[in-house]
Amino acid sequence: MTAPPKCLTGDSAAINDFIDKFDTFLLDCDGVLWSGNHVFEGVPETLELLRSKGKRIVFVTNNSTKSRQEYVEKLNSLNIPSDVEDVFGSAYSSAVYISRILKLPPGKNKVFVIGEAGVEAELVSEGVPFVGGTDQKLRRDITSADFEGIADGSLLDPEVGVVLCGLDFHINYLKLAYGLHYLRRGAKFLATNIDSTLPMHHDIFLGAGSVMVPLANASGQKPLELGKPSQAMMDAIEGKFQLVRPRTCMVGDRLNTDIKFGIQGNLGGTLHVQTGVDKKEAWERADAIAVPSFYAEKLSDLRHAALEN
Amino acid sequence: MTAPPKCLTGDSAAINDFIDKFDTFLLDCDGVLWSGNHVFEGVPETLELLRSKGKRIVFVTNNSTKSRQEYVEKLNSLNIPSDVEDVFGSAYSSAVYISRILKLPPGKNKVFVIGEAGVEAELVSEGVPFVGGTDQKLRRDITSADFEGIADGSLLDPEVGVVLCGLDFHINYLKLAYGLHYLRRGAKFLATNIDSTLPMHHDIFLGAGSVMVPLANASGQKPLELGKPSQAMMDAIEGKFQLVRPRTCMVGDRLNTDIKFGIQGNLGGTLHVQTGVDKKEAWERADAIAVPSFYAEKLSDLRHAALEN
Repeated sequence: MTAPPKCLTGDSAAINDFIDKFDTFLLDCDGVLWSGNHVFEGVPETLELLRSKGKRIVFVTNNSTKSRQEYVEKLNSLNIPSDVEDVFGSAYSSAVYISRILKLPPGKNKVFVIGEAGVEAELVSEGVPFVGGTDQKLRRDITSADFEGIADGSLLDPEVGVVLCGLDFHINYLKLAYGLHYLRRGAKFLATNIDSTLPMHHDIFLGAGSVMVPLANASGQKPLELGKPSQAMMDAIEGKFQLVRPRTCMVGDRLNTDIKFGIQGNLGGTLHVQTGVDKKEAWERADAIAVPSFYAEKLSDLRHAALEN
Repeated sequence: MTAPPKCLTGDSAAINDFIDKFDTFLLDCDGVLWSGNHVFEGVPETLELLRSKGKRIVFVTNNSTKSRQEYVEKLNSLNIPSDVEDVFGSAYSSAVYISRILKLPPGKNKVFVIGEAGVEAELVSEGVPFVGGTDQKLRRDITSADFEGIADGSLLDPEVGVVLCGLDFHINYLKLAYGLHYLRRGAKFLATNIDSTLPMHHDIFLGAGSVMVPLANASGQKPLELGKPSQAMMDAIEGKFQLVRPRTCMVGDRLNTDIKFGIQGNLGGTLHVQTGVDKKEAWERADAIAVPSFYAEKLSDLRHAALEN
């Protein structure tokens, strides 16, 4: 039995205890800091307060379409001063995994990318060569010559050793055919994340997991996923930030990614906020996918008591 | 325990008995009659012989990219004289299901198609209105305006009551976004077939099931499938051809579609040929997905003994 989560909203003493417990806060972005381009009231001040108390803030996101640099620009535009070292996204997590863990042999070290510019920028930052991605030559209909050249291998790059699949708004049959045939020739199968849906415009669209799933279905293989809740991402964060896990708290709005990520990573705590996808009813159920150790109505509730410290 | 399949190859008496058992033969095409555009030796003569003995031949295919008329043209070009009434494809099966079984109410009777011209031609033949499909306006990148208009519903056709998904070589994020949002608004989810792969150029590519699976993954819904081995297709064939099931035999190369289709349909028999995807080793396994009642090396083996009749 897990103890029920402790409510922080409106409880000054509990908030002070909570903040004192941790040195580092891993923060999900969408649904915690903002919804789309609308930053939630009081969030910049809350982060400023935590930083003034010497806490480290790391922004941890599964969105692979943006690079860390693009996240920094968004954070700064929403009055959350940050630099690239404060951000850890699934695109970066994937690039780090490929360059530092997989360490592909020369001659087989290229990545075939299904995804947007964010993935490419992070591969560049880690010095990983790639093909595919936003290449305009792949943004077209498949032809008979493509079918033939992909089947006989003459159109395939023999140096590709990995297929990395992220969210791709330009997905098409041609890219999927390339991906499938690289997998059939032994390339490793990685996914930046496997979120089936993407919240947008107060509704949902297809997420990275739904762009990747044709390859899984046709190849019979499952990708290694490198976004939350994958512990490959936690290991990479730990390595980079020298985390002390018992002194680290994961803050998020989704149980199946954020809260599960923190619990499986044996962090000191997890904080669930009610401003995103999942509400408290989701962990009140007997078959809850994950139960946080703390919850609050919103991130900015942390400001209250802390001011009286 | 199922009895082991009886081998027909080289056994004149067995072939005569086999042919006498049935009035109708349901024939899969790819891997039975031909591979790509190469018809197997002796196949036209074999079919001529069966017809000369008064047997009815029905060509039953899961390929939804071609209409029945296009199949007839292919059959005739390969010296297999046929007309449109001899062909039953998954596109036609889907159109018949929608028009005669679903019977959608006026005002909610349009189909959003993910698929090629074959599906469209069969919907036209059954008088079913549709949008999507090969519409050039959907063969482009998704824009911000699309996201917004799909989310708020202003771009959606309020008369769509079904999403029908077949093999689509022009699949893209925009079509999938439309499909997902029609499903989220209550449209019924149908698939012409769910083959994960498509044999082509002596290799495999992505099949209809791998084009449909992003919608299943993002919506959490499973489609009703209307190709082999779905018994919705068998029921439609029975209705159209007035089949006497114990006097009907399914002939095919794949266990998970053709042979399973015949067994679950309680046909008088199933014949497995070795000229396509699955070989006899596949049903010799203890965990075989389906075991035929007869097998032969190739369809044209049936010619031998029958000539001595």
